Amino acid sequence: MNIPLIARQLGLLLIVMSASILAVAAWSCLRVMLGDSGESAALRALMTTVALGGLAGAALWFGPPRRSEAIGRREAILLVAMSWFIGAALGALPFRLWPAYGGTEFAGHPFADYVNCYFETMSGLTTTGATVLTDIEALPRSLLLWRALTHWLGGLGIVVLFVAVLPILGVGGKRLFRVEAAGPTPDGVTPRIQETARVLWLIYLGLTVAEIIALRVVGMGWFDSVCHTFATLATGGFSNHNASVAGYRSAGVDLVILVFMVAAGVNFGLYFQLLRRRWKSVVGDPELRCYLGIILIGTIVVAWSVHGQAYNTTTGEAAASDIGSTLRYSAFQVVGVQTTTGFCTADFDQWPFVAKGVMLALMFIGGSAGSTGGGLKVIRCLMAVKIMWAELEHVFKPQVVRPIKIGKVTVDQDLKHSTVVYILGVVVLVFLGAAALMVLERGSSIDATTSVTASIATLNNIGPGLARVGATCNYGWFTAESKWLMSVLMALGRLEVLTVIVLFAPRFWRSD
Amino acid sequence: MNIPLIARQLGLLLIVMSASILAVAAWSCLRVMLGDSGESAALRALMTTVALGGLAGAALWFGPPRRSEAIGRREAILLVAMSWFIGAALGALPFRLWPAYGGTEFAGHPFADYVNCYFETMSGLTTTGATVLTDIEALPRSLLLWRALTHWLGGLGIVVLFVAVLPILGVGGKRLFRVEAAGPTPDGVTPRIQETARVLWLIYLGLTVAEIIALRVVGMGWFDSVCHTFATLATGGFSNHNASVAGYRSAGVDLVILVFMVAAGVNFGLYFQLLRRRWKSVVGDPELRCYLGIILIGTIVVAWSVHGQAYNTTTGEAAASDIGSTLRYSAFQVVGVQTTTGFCTADFDQWPFVAKGVMLALMFIGGSAGSTGGGLKVIRCLMAVKIMWAELEHVFKPQVVRPIKIGKVTVDQDLKHSTVVYILGVVVLVFLGAAALMVLERGSSIDATTSVTASIATLNNIGPGLARVGATCNYGWFTAESKWLMSVLMALGRLEVLTVIVLFAPRFWRSD
Repeated sequence: MNIPLIARQLGLLLIVMSASILAVAAWSCLRVMLGDSGESAALRALMTTVALGGLAGAALWFGPPRRSEAIGRREAILLVAMSWFIGAALGALPFRLWPAYGGTEFAGHPFADYVNCYFETMSGLTTTGATVLTDIEALPRSLLLWRALTHWLGGLGIVVLFVAVLPILGVGGKRLFRVEAAGPTPDGVTPRIQETARVLWLIYLGLTVAEIIALRVVGMGWFDSVCHTFATLATGGFSNHNASVAGYRSAGVDLVILVFMVAAGVNFGLYFQLLRRRWKSVVGDPELRCYLGIILIGTIVVAWSVHGQAYNTTTGEAAASDIGSTLRYSAFQVVGVQTTTGFCTADFDQWPFVAKGVMLALMFIGGSAGSTGGGLKVIRCLMAVKIMWAELEHVFKPQVVRPIKIGKVTVDQDLKHSTVVYILGVVVLVFLGAAALMVLERGSSIDATTSVTASIATLNNIGPGLARVGATCNYGWFTAESKWLMSVLMALGRLEVLTVIVLFAPRFWRSD
Repeated sequence: MNIPLIARQLGLLLIVMSASILAVAAWSCLRVMLGDSGESAALRALMTTVALGGLAGAALWFGPPRRSEAIGRREAILLVAMSWFIGAALGALPFRLWPAYGGTEFAGHPFADYVNCYFETMSGLTTTGATVLTDIEALPRSLLLWRALTHWLGGLGIVVLFVAVLPILGVGGKRLFRVEAAGPTPDGVTPRIQETARVLWLIYLGLTVAEIIALRVVGMGWFDSVCHTFATLATGGFSNHNASVAGYRSAGVDLVILVFMVAAGVNFGLYFQLLRRRWKSVVGDPELRCYLGIILIGTIVVAWSVHGQAYNTTTGEAAASDIGSTLRYSAFQVVGVQTTTGFCTADFDQWPFVAKGVMLALMFIGGSAGSTGGGLKVIRCLMAVKIMWAELEHVFKPQVVRPIKIGKVTVDQDLKHSTVVYILGVVVLVFLGAAALMVLERGSSIDATTSVTASIATLNNIGPGLARVGATCNYGWFTAESKWLMSVLMALGRLEVLTVIVLFAPRFWRSD
């Protein structure tokens, strides 16, 4: 295990994060100079974090001896997993220091407890979007910006990680990419990865600029446009409003965010193909078709189930019940949950059972592979359905061996096996998570729906669940132990489970 | 598709069932002659059923042309699946006819509705043990006997089917038996199957006689001994008492039933080996060790969690809280649920969360393959754990290919794959079942715990679940639609899912 190399890479991560926080601090400084007195405590918190993070990063970068630069599979896995946990630890500092510098008036603020800050930052970096805050709007603007920026950094990290870096290491991503004709298939040459990462970064940036402008055009302010764009493209879900996106009461805002949520749930490799004008491979991509089909069917079923029922928007007002409004709220919630963004406009916890059942199913499916979305991923679900169907046929026609195809590519035995094992593993983890939450919350009256959906919503990086973690609720009421556990679940989900769990296997650490 | 052959075999089934009902009727007749006036309506109901079943059976047996006697794979699957549905349809008749013949006083009895009778009979034949009755003790004794006998017939059918017949056809059982060194491995020669079936039948009969005597010795009456023996060895769970086994308030009865429940959850092939004095292969059987280990660990964890807590026995009295009683109630509930028998002495719905969590996990695991128990089966769970562990190691050491072994036998790729797919399929079915129950029960306030555990308890052939289908509750309050659905779930579970589901695959019916 090349520990010095890992330490140096983690140092680099801390430096990059400190630089991002410095950018936020600069903007905060500008606001202070323009007379925003509410920002001064936040500015001090941000600058302290930059100093601490920069020092620690520099120590880790320059400290360890520069020996071999070769990075093995185990080093890479350890590095990726640790990056998320250590990144969240640093990113939580501005939140924690702000009430400390703000004086006694902030003594009761959720952020006066470090576990809340860690949960919020992990939720941001993993693009989950679950919050511990009841009154989001009371936060200084610079902290709102940093909160949204954690989404954007996490989303970018994931895209680069899963589309460009991990396939080379043969972890997670590669197994999915082998069956995706349309996706980029990096050949393991370093210049190629860097090129891919660069293009993906540009695509992400392009989408970001496009959404900021689109949101501004439909009437949102610049600041909120930037924050909501970060949260949308990373499929995160942090909003600057307590009532989430419904707070704008604007069909235009809903529509723009809806469109970009759908865009964020698409395999970013397809945008790569679009740039190369390979229209055919984009249009014919089986995962894209399946993904859009699920959104369409989900919206129709939910709209049918919800139509004529009384329910509130997340602002607490009664939702209009005409067909247009029904479609608007149904589509937004379906896309919000399916892409694992978690933005809400309607309180779907009040919806009839059929609609809630569809939402629950969508929570598991998630976005496309190679997108910023979480969940099981559309292509895995598509494969699982085909595998189960083949198994059924195998019972009465054992002599027929029908290869399983995704598009024109035949899925090999290994990939079939690991897909089914992965899905089963996630189901098992959801239940272990829910059971652990019930044990940890024994004092308060947590019900089965809350514990199971909280486990799903954090493990699949969605944000809202049902019942006490529903669209209009938050995670602030959980015990500290539960929040630590859910922070781990979020990291597990973001790194596709195996990357984190292998760290607990004794064999991983053996030197052979 | 050789329809005439299937019709004739179903005719044979009806004749055999009618003969069993005739035996019950003879006993009922004896009781009427001895002056039991409550039996007269039941006797008429039983005799009418014998006449109808005998006629229908004879018509099906003699009617269709005797052409080829060759039975293909598809015919066998269709026959097995239809046997359960048609058997339940005939077996439900005595229950339905009894209130009809009994006059107006029975107008409000649950059995005045055919769906309740069908549910009860399917629950009996599939050895589930879920009842629709609130007052079981009010039933005439002959109907109680028939109710228990459906368990025994179903249990016998399953043992013969899964240990002797299905492996030949390559359905379900075989896939499991291929890895069981200790189990009998029939070679596909007909005389061999018949011999195997005969020996298994004798083992089943021997265990039956042994338990009846043992129960009589600890003070249970002959009639109750017979009925409870039928329910124990089939891992059914119908009791003659409203309070289930706790109604006897006897530690001796608890102990005898506990021991025979454990015995019924063991692979019957192992008794075969015992008779041949192959001690080593029995003691070294990995599934047996795992099965007993789960019971032991489950009991310890539950006892630890329950100790010192207040809860009632199923009679409604407070359970004693000394260590002996805690162990007695913990072990009985753990074995009752793990073997999927479903006998209860304590109301585990009142237990603390940890104990309920363990019970829920045990509901999924179930008994051993080739036993009368339901659930996923111990060996499948054992395999799944090993497979997931191997997948984990595969992430950081892709070059290492470690074969998965159960005992000394290496599990091949096909079996690994079908095991994981099977487990995933059951999980999906549990949720589809729970969702369907919620939709069907929309009027009444069915909660998530009730619908999920009702789905598990019927699909895994257990009987009691949690909340409104808990140890002291029954299934009478569900709507007729839900009862039909759960009848199908019970049959699905009993036939290991695939046998029934393939009937819905269009390709199954195509003649190619």
